[in-house]
Amino acid sequence: MLTVQDALLTLQKFWTDRGCMVVQPFNTEVGAGTMNPATLLRVLGPEPWRVGYVEPSVRPDDSRYGENPNRLQQHTQFQVILKPDPGNPQELYLESLAALGIDLHAHDVRFVEDNWAQPAIGAWGLGWEVWLDGMEVTQFTYFQQVGGQNLDPVSVELTYGIERIMMAQQGVSHFKDMVYAPGITYGEAFGQQEYEMSRYYLDDADVPTNRELFERYTAEARRLVEARLPVPAHTYVLKSSHAFNVLDSRGAISTTERAQAFSTMRALARDVAALWVERRAELDYPLLKSDAAPVLAGAAVMPPHEGEEPEAAVAAGAAPEDFAFEIGVEELPPHVVGQAVEQVRSLLTDGLAAGRLTHGEVSVLGTPRRIVAHVQDVSAHEPDAQTMRKGPKVGAAYDDEGNPTKAAQGFARGQKVDVADLVRAEFDGAEHVAVRIDQPGRDALSVLGDLVATTVGELRADRNMRWSDPELTYSRPIRWVVALWGALVVPAQVSQLRTGRTTYTQRGDADPLVRVDNAQTLAPVLAERGIVLDAAERRSSVVAQTTALAATVGGVVDFEDEAALVDEITNLVEQPRGILGSFEERYLKLPEQILTTVMRKHQRYLPVRDADGSLRPYFVTMANGVCDDDVVREGNEKVLRARYEDAAFFYDADLQTPLADLRSGIGKLTFENRLGSVAQRADRIADVASALAGDLELDSDDRSTLTRAGELAKFDLASQMVIELSSLAGTMAREYALRAGESPAVADALAEMEQPRSAGGVIPRTVPGAVLALADRFDLLAAMFALGAKPTGSSDPFALRRAALGVISILREHEALSLVTVDSGLDAAAKRLREQGIEVGDEAVSAARAFTVGRLIQQLRDEGVDARLADAVAPLSASPGKAQAALGDIERTRTDLRLATLVEAVQRITRIVPAGTAAAYDASVLVDPAEVGLERLVAALPDHRADAIPGWLPDASVLVGPLTRFFDEVLVMAPDERLRAARLGLLQTIVDRAPDGIDWQALNSAL
Amino acid sequence: MLTVQDALLTLQKFWTDRGCMVVQPFNTEVGAGTMNPATLLRVLGPEPWRVGYVEPSVRPDDSRYGENPNRLQQHTQFQVILKPDPGNPQELYLESLAALGIDLHAHDVRFVEDNWAQPAIGAWGLGWEVWLDGMEVTQFTYFQQVGGQNLDPVSVELTYGIERIMMAQQGVSHFKDMVYAPGITYGEAFGQQEYEMSRYYLDDADVPTNRELFERYTAEARRLVEARLPVPAHTYVLKSSHAFNVLDSRGAISTTERAQAFSTMRALARDVAALWVERRAELDYPLLKSDAAPVLAGAAVMPPHEGEEPEAAVAAGAAPEDFAFEIGVEELPPHVVGQAVEQVRSLLTDGLAAGRLTHGEVSVLGTPRRIVAHVQDVSAHEPDAQTMRKGPKVGAAYDDEGNPTKAAQGFARGQKVDVADLVRAEFDGAEHVAVRIDQPGRDALSVLGDLVATTVGELRADRNMRWSDPELTYSRPIRWVVALWGALVVPAQVSQLRTGRTTYTQRGDADPLVRVDNAQTLAPVLAERGIVLDAAERRSSVVAQTTALAATVGGVVDFEDEAALVDEITNLVEQPRGILGSFEERYLKLPEQILTTVMRKHQRYLPVRDADGSLRPYFVTMANGVCDDDVVREGNEKVLRARYEDAAFFYDADLQTPLADLRSGIGKLTFENRLGSVAQRADRIADVASALAGDLELDSDDRSTLTRAGELAKFDLASQMVIELSSLAGTMAREYALRAGESPAVADALAEMEQPRSAGGVIPRTVPGAVLALADRFDLLAAMFALGAKPTGSSDPFALRRAALGVISILREHEALSLVTVDSGLDAAAKRLREQGIEVGDEAVSAARAFTVGRLIQQLRDEGVDARLADAVAPLSASPGKAQAALGDIERTRTDLRLATLVEAVQRITRIVPAGTAAAYDASVLVDPAEVGLERLVAALPDHRADAIPGWLPDASVLVGPLTRFFDEVLVMAPDERLRAARLGLLQTIVDRAPDGIDWQALNSAL
Repeated sequence: MLTVQDALLTLQKFWTDRGCMVVQPFNTEVGAGTMNPATLLRVLGPEPWRVGYVEPSVRPDDSRYGENPNRLQQHTQFQVILKPDPGNPQELYLESLAALGIDLHAHDVRFVEDNWAQPAIGAWGLGWEVWLDGMEVTQFTYFQQVGGQNLDPVSVELTYGIERIMMAQQGVSHFKDMVYAPGITYGEAFGQQEYEMSRYYLDDADVPTNRELFERYTAEARRLVEARLPVPAHTYVLKSSHAFNVLDSRGAISTTERAQAFSTMRALARDVAALWVERRAELDYPLLKSDAAPVLAGAAVMPPHEGEEPEAAVAAGAAPEDFAFEIGVEELPPHVVGQAVEQVRSLLTDGLAAGRLTHGEVSVLGTPRRIVAHVQDVSAHEPDAQTMRKGPKVGAAYDDEGNPTKAAQGFARGQKVDVADLVRAEFDGAEHVAVRIDQPGRDALSVLGDLVATTVGELRADRNMRWSDPELTYSRPIRWVVALWGALVVPAQVSQLRTGRTTYTQRGDADPLVRVDNAQTLAPVLAERGIVLDAAERRSSVVAQTTALAATVGGVVDFEDEAALVDEITNLVEQPRGILGSFEERYLKLPEQILTTVMRKHQRYLPVRDADGSLRPYFVTMANGVCDDDVVREGNEKVLRARYEDAAFFYDADLQTPLADLRSGIGKLTFENRLGSVAQRADRIADVASALAGDLELDSDDRSTLTRAGELAKFDLASQMVIELSSLAGTMAREYALRAGESPAVADALAEMEQPRSAGGVIPRTVPGAVLALADRFDLLAAMFALGAKPTGSSDPFALRRAALGVISILREHEALSLVTVDSGLDAAAKRLREQGIEVGDEAVSAARAFTVGRLIQQLRDEGVDARLADAVAPLSASPGKAQAALGDIERTRTDLRLATLVEAVQRITRIVPAGTAAAYDASVLVDPAEVGLERLVAALPDHRADAIPGWLPDASVLVGPLTRFFDEVLVMAPDERLRAARLGLLQTIVDRAPDGIDWQALNSAL
Repeated sequence: MLTVQDALLTLQKFWTDRGCMVVQPFNTEVGAGTMNPATLLRVLGPEPWRVGYVEPSVRPDDSRYGENPNRLQQHTQFQVILKPDPGNPQELYLESLAALGIDLHAHDVRFVEDNWAQPAIGAWGLGWEVWLDGMEVTQFTYFQQVGGQNLDPVSVELTYGIERIMMAQQGVSHFKDMVYAPGITYGEAFGQQEYEMSRYYLDDADVPTNRELFERYTAEARRLVEARLPVPAHTYVLKSSHAFNVLDSRGAISTTERAQAFSTMRALARDVAALWVERRAELDYPLLKSDAAPVLAGAAVMPPHEGEEPEAAVAAGAAPEDFAFEIGVEELPPHVVGQAVEQVRSLLTDGLAAGRLTHGEVSVLGTPRRIVAHVQDVSAHEPDAQTMRKGPKVGAAYDDEGNPTKAAQGFARGQKVDVADLVRAEFDGAEHVAVRIDQPGRDALSVLGDLVATTVGELRADRNMRWSDPELTYSRPIRWVVALWGALVVPAQVSQLRTGRTTYTQRGDADPLVRVDNAQTLAPVLAERGIVLDAAERRSSVVAQTTALAATVGGVVDFEDEAALVDEITNLVEQPRGILGSFEERYLKLPEQILTTVMRKHQRYLPVRDADGSLRPYFVTMANGVCDDDVVREGNEKVLRARYEDAAFFYDADLQTPLADLRSGIGKLTFENRLGSVAQRADRIADVASALAGDLELDSDDRSTLTRAGELAKFDLASQMVIELSSLAGTMAREYALRAGESPAVADALAEMEQPRSAGGVIPRTVPGAVLALADRFDLLAAMFALGAKPTGSSDPFALRRAALGVISILREHEALSLVTVDSGLDAAAKRLREQGIEVGDEAVSAARAFTVGRLIQQLRDEGVDARLADAVAPLSASPGKAQAALGDIERTRTDLRLATLVEAVQRITRIVPAGTAAAYDASVLVDPAEVGLERLVAALPDHRADAIPGWLPDASVLVGPLTRFFDEVLVMAPDERLRAARLGLLQTIVDRAPDGIDWQALNSAL
C-alpha cells in the first residue's frame, strides 16, 4: 500500500526527475503552499523557476478537533511551480498521478473550470480543479497576476491535496485511518496535534494577544518594506495573515475589521511584490543565466506537430477540396464552448466572404478541448480580379483641349501609372478618371492560412489569460491547430503556434496523437475516438443516458429544472458517459436543499427523483470517455458520502443544540466593533420590526409570529451548518425552527427575513417575513451610514446596495406594507441604534434615505421601465409600493385617450404656477366667463390627493376643455394682483386635487 | 554529482527504508531539529518513535549576509530520532554515510566525545560529534533528559549538518557554490534570502517589537500550559525562543535579561514536557500498541554474539588456562579510557583475590572501544574449603554437666545442624562452639562468569548514561563482552548482555566480527587488525609518527607543550595513523593564538614549528586506522582552511575598521539594562582606573599608557573576531591596537585588563594593565551589588566570584599597587556609578567589600596556606598586597626562634588588655621594678606600626624576657585604678608599636 509518506516522496522524486527543485515547507504558518516565498515571490519577474515541495497548510477555520473525517486544521499540500509554462503541464500532471499508482484508464479525470483569486494578495489566475472521479484532488492554475503585478512569463501552479488523494487511494473514510507510514496511521501520528491545535484555534487562543500580534506583524512588515527587504517583509505578512486567521476562527473578526485587515494585507502584499521585482532587477536577475533554467526531462506528448514534413503547394487547376480546421485547447469553461463555436463561425464566414474563394457549407462544432470547423468544397484558387481606383472627375481631369490637367497628372503620378493609362469609370453616377488595379487570385493554402491565423489570433472569451505563448491570449491555452485543405496542411503560424495535421484525441487514449490524412477525415477520426463534436448531440446523449440510468432504479430526472446543469455538463465532457451512483438513504433526512446544492453545484450530479418529485438516493454523473464504471462510481459515491457526512455532522450537532443556545451563541459573533455582536443586531431587528408593525394592521397570528420570529432572529448564524455554508442562512433557520417545534409561520418568517438574497431574488411571501426582512435592511443601512461606511462606485463591502434594493423590492411587492416608507423604516432603525448608544446623525439618515430611494429608479430602469415613466413616479420613491401602484395605474389607463390631454393640461399648470402657490382663491374676483366656468367645475372637483389616477381621471378630465379655453382667453398673470392671485389659486387647486406623488412634467413627456 | 536535494531525498529514503517516519520541518522558526515537536515531545514517555526529517534551522546569530563561506543564518539539518535505541545506531549511521556516497574505507570517520546539554530546555545527553576527516558532520546523542524529565527509553538523536557534508562531498569552499539541484547553486536559489534575513537579524529587526513578541509568546505559552495543551504551548515556547534569538543577534539582550529569559523558557519547557507526558498517559499511550513500533530493516552487525553455540563445561582435572575478557563499548571519551582500565583492573584483581582460583599475571589494557583484560594460568577449579561459623562461647554453650545449653541448641537449630555436630574453635583468642561450613570449589567458568558480570555491572565513569539496556549504565553504551577461559566461553549475563567469543574489530574492516578461538588469541586477533591495545604503546606511536612527519618538512613538535593533547589523541584512536597536513602560508599572518586554538582545541591537530618555535604552516592529525591518506589529508586541510578562512574573514574585516569605530561600536551592545551599554561601562572603567592611579606614583609613561588604554578599553568587544570567539577578548585588543599603531604598552594594557581570565590565571604584568583590570572588576562588583545581584551558593551568573578573586590576585602580586585597597577601589567605582545616575547604597558597597575581602582567605586556603596563618593576616584582607607581604615576612622569619616567643607575648597582652585601651600611660605611677624595667624598654621601642615583622622583631624581642618577668611579678589588674590604667597602657603601647594588621592570636596558634 502506498503510504502518505510514500506519496510525498514519490511526488518529490517525480518532479525532481523533471527538473524541479525541492524546497522545504516554510518556517512560519502558511494557509497554502502558494504563500511560501518559493511560490509567491518567485512567480514574479522574468526569471525561470521550477520547484516542488510539501507544504503543511494551516487553516484555523477548518479546525474540527480531529472529529470531522475530512476536515483538518493542518492539511498537507504538494505544491509545484513551473515557470515558464512548459507547454505540456496537463500531460506532466497526469503522468504524476500515474506515478502515484492511479490508473488513468480506469478513473475519470476531469479538468473543471476554477478561476482562482486571492484578493488579500492581489492575485488571480485561471485554471481548473482537477477531479478524480468527482473529487477535487488538485488545483491547477495559470497564474496571471500576483501582488498586483502582471506575470510574464506565466507560471503554472499545481497544488495536490494529499489527504484527499490518499484517502481515496487507500480506501479509508476518515483521515485518521490513512496509513501514514508502515505501522502507523495519520491519527496515531498526528491526532493529538490535530485536537490540540483545534482547541487553540477554536477555543483557547487569546484574542487580545493575537490582535496585538497582528498589529505588530503588519507594522514590522511595513518597516521592512521601507528598508527594502522583501523576504523578511513577506514573512511578516504571512505571520499577520496567520494571526488574522486565528482571530477569525475565534470569531473575533467583525465585518469592518475584516475589510480593514484585508486592505492592510493587500497593500503590504503589493508593496512586497513590487519591491521583490525591483530587487531582482537590481541583482540583475541571477537566474536568467542560460544554464539555470532546468529542463523538464521525460515530458509527455506536446507539441503534437513536431517533426511533420512540409507540404506541397496547390497544383495549378486543382479541383475544390474541403477545408477542415481544429483549434485544440486545454479544457474551456463550459460557458465558453458555445461562445467559441459562434466566434469561430463568425470569423470564418466573414473571412471567407471577404475573399474570393468559392465554397460550400460552413459548419463549426466544439467540445471543451477543441473547436472544429469544416467548409465544403473550397476552390483551389481565387479568380483573378480587377478593381478601379477613383481619380478626379473627368471634367477636372482634362482641359478643354482634352489634355490631362495637373489634377489628372498628379493622380497618375500618385498611382505610379502613365497618365495615358488612365481610364474612365463611373463612381456614384459621376464619371471619373480611374486606374485599373489587377488582383491576381491567391491559392487556397495562402488564403486559408491567413484566415486560420486571424481566427486563432482573434479568439477571445469574456475572461482571457496568457500562457507560454508570448502573444496569444484566450480563455485557456491553445495548444495545437490542425488545418487541412484536402490532403494538404494549410500552413500558418500565429505567434509560436504552427498548423499541422496531427490531432490530439482524448488523453486517456493509448495513442492520443493521430495523423489526419485529409480534411474530410478529421471529424471521422475524432468520432472514431468517441469524441462527440456536436454539443446538441452531446446534450441529447446526456439526457438519454441519464433517463435510462434513472429508469433502472425507477427514477426520473426533472430536465426542465436541471436545464442549466445539463447545459454545463454537456460542455464539461467530450464523450459523455453516464454513470449511476447512489448514496445511503439515511442522508435523505437532510434538508433537500443541502442535498441538491451539493449534487448540483459542487458535483454536477443530476439528482434522481420519484415520480412525485421527492428525492431518491441516486444521482447520475457524466464521466468523460471510457473508464471503469465501477471504479468511477465508487469514487464519486465516496465523494458524495464525504460531503454528506460533513453536512450530516453539522446537521446532527445543530439539532442537538437548543434554539435558545444557538440564539445566545450569536452573541459571541462580532458583527461590527462599534455596532456590537450579531445578537445585538438581531435584537435591534426585532425591535425595529415591532415598531414597523405598529403602523400596520396585522392580524393576531401575524403579530405573534412576528414576535416569536423576532426573538429567534438570525439564531442559525451560530449553527455549524451555516458557519460552514453561509448561503444556507435562513434555510437552516426554517429547518431547525420546525424541528424544534416552532410553528411553520415562525419558521417561514425566519427564512424569509433573509430574502431577497440577491437583486431579483425571491421576495418574502408573508407579512411577518417581509417586516423582519425590512427591519434587517433598515438596521444595516442606518447603522452603516451612521458609521460613514457609504458605498462608493467601486466598493460596497457591506452590500448596502443589495440591502437598499431589498427594501425597495419588498415594499413594491407588499401592498399590506404600504404604510411603511423608507423614512419610517430608517427613522425606526436610527432610533433603536441611538438607544444602544450609537450616534446616528440626521445627515446620516438623510444620506441613507437618498441612497435607498435612489435604488427604486435604478431598479425600474433595470427592469426596462421607460425612464420618463420612472421619473414620473419618482416623488413616490420613499413609498415604493405606491410608486409601483402608480406605475400600474398609468399603464392601465394609458389606453384612455383622456389621460394624455389631462396630464398635459396639469403639467401646463405646474409650469405656469409658481412654487408655493396656495390651492385657494377668491371666486368673487374672477370675472372672465372662461374662468368663471372653470371655477364652477373646479369647485365641484373632489379631492383625489390620496386617490389613484384611474379614480381621478373621469372626474378631472371634464376640466380639459374648459382649461384650454381658460388658457386661450384669460391672462393668468393679470396686472391686478388680486385677480392674478385668484387665477393662480384656481389653477393650483386643480393640481392640488390630483393624486399625490406624480411628476406631471415627466409623465407628460412619457405619454 | 550528488546535489543537496539528492542528499536530502537519499537520507529520507535511507531512514524510511529502516522503519522511520518522515515528518515535515516545523512551521515556526526553530534553532535546531531537536526543537521540532517530533523530537522534543516525542522522546518523552514510553512510546516508541522513529522519525527522520529535514529541518531548516534558523540561528540569527550566525547571520553573515551570506558573505562568510561557512556560516548561514539558516542551515539545513537532517534529524533522526530512534526511540528506543535500536542497539546498533552507530552502524546504521555509518551505512547512511555510505548511502550518501561516502567511501568509509577511504575516509577517517571518528566519534569524538561531545556531551550535549541545552539548559534552556532542561535537556542533556551524551554522545559524539562525528568527524569525517576532521570535520564535524553529525551530532550523535543519546538523550538522557529533556524538559527536566528522565527519558525511558533513551532516544538516539542523529543530526546531520547537510551543508558541511555537501560542501565536502562536492569539493566547494563556499556554501553558495554548492549545487543545490541540477543547474542551480545554493547561492542562486537562496542567496538573496540569506542576505535579507541576515539584514533583518543583524540590523533591521525592531527591538521593541521583538521584546513585545517575546512577552506575548511566553504569556501565551503559559496560558496554554494552564489549559493543558502541550502542543500549542510548545509552539509558543519556540516562538519566544526565536524572538529571544532575534533580540540577541541585534545585541539587545543584556546579561540580566538573558538569565531572566532563559529561566522563563526553561520553566516553560519543563511544564510543557511534564504536561505532554501526562497527556500521553491519559490517552493511554496510543503508540504502545504492538504493531506501531516500526522495525529497522537491513540493520547492521550488532549484536555480535548472535547464533553462537553453547559451550561445554570444564572437564574434571583440567589444567589451568588463560582468561581473556573484552568489554566492547562505543567510543569512550579519551579521559575515561584510562579510568576504565584502572577500574577493570581493580574489580578483577579484587574479585580474583576474593575467590580461590589460582592465577598468574593480570594485565588490563584499553582503547576508546574496548577494555581488554588478560589473566594468565587461571586454575580450572577452586579447591574445596571449609570455614567455621562462630557460635556462643564454650562456657555458655555447655552446662556444668557438659550438656548443650539453650544457647548452643538455638545456635545449632539456626544453622540447621544437629547440636552434636557443633565443634570447638578459637575466635579472637576465645574458644567458641562453631559449625563447620564446607565450601566446595567452583569451576573457573562459574567463578569467572560471576566476576565478568560484576565487573561489567559495576563499571562507572564520572558521567554515566543509559541506552537500550534496561539496567546498565556507563559512560557510553557497552555493546558486547568477550570472555574466554582457554577455548571456552565464560558464560555470563548482565542485564541483556551475554558473553561470547566474537570480537568486533575496527568498523572499517571488511569483516569486523571475528571469532576468537581461545583466550590467548584475543589480543593477537586484535593486534592483527591493527588495534593497539596498550595506551603507552599508542602514545609512543603518536609521538614517533608525528616526529617523523614533522621532520619531512623540517619541523618539530613541542611534545612538552602538547602533552595533554597527545594524551587525548592517544585515547581518541585505536590505531593511530599520522597524517601530515598543511595550510596556506597566508594564514600565518593571523595571531598565533587563533591558529593554535583552532588546531588544538577544535581539531586536535599537533602544530608543527620551526626549531625557533615559530609556527609552520603544517599540522599532524591522527586518523583512526587504515584510510586513504590523501583523501583524509585533503579533508582535514579543507576543514582547517574553512576555520582559518572564517578567522581571516573576521580578522580582515576588523583590521579595516578604525579603532575609534570599534570603540563606538560597543555603544550598541547592551551591558545591562540599568547599567547602560558596554561603552558606558568602558568609560566608567577608564575613570575608575584614573582615580586609582591618582593615589599611585606612576611614571609618565605608565600614566599616558593608562590614559590611552582607558580611552580604548574593551573596543575589541565590537570586533567580529571577539563576537565570534569571546575567549579572544583582550587578545584581539592587543593585536588590533598594535596593528593600528598604538604603542606596545597600550596594547599590552588592553590585553591585560582582561586578566586573570580564571581563578589561577595569568595576572596583568604591567601596572597600567593591572589598574585597568582592577577598575574593570571594581566596576562590576559595585554595579552588581548595587543592583542586588549578589551571588548565591549555586548561582553566580555575573561571575562576581571570579571578579573578586581577580582583584585579590592582582593586588597580591603588584607591590606597586599597595596603596589601592578593596575599599578605595569600590568607593571609586561606586562614586563613578552614582555620577551616571545609578543608585549605589552604602550597604551595597559594604556587601561588595565583605564579599571581595572574603575571597582572600578562600584563595589562601585553596593554595594550601595554613588556615591559622591565613587568619593571622585576615585583618589586611582589604590590602591583599600587604597581607601577601605579611605572609611572606612570617614565613621568612619563622626560623628566628625569637618570633614565636615574641608573638606569644603579644597575644598574651591582647588577651589581657580590654579593647579600646589607649596606648599611653603615666610612667610616674609605675612602681614595681619589673614594670619600671619594662617601661624603660618600651619607651625606647620604635613605632613599627607601618613596618613589617622582620624589622620589628629585633627591636621588640628584647621585651620578651622583661614581659615574662612583668607578668610573673606584677598584678596588671591592680585595685588602684591609676596604677591599673598605667599598667594596661604600658602593655597596649607594646602592641600598638607592633606591625599593623596582624591577628596575634591566630598567628600565635599558627607558629
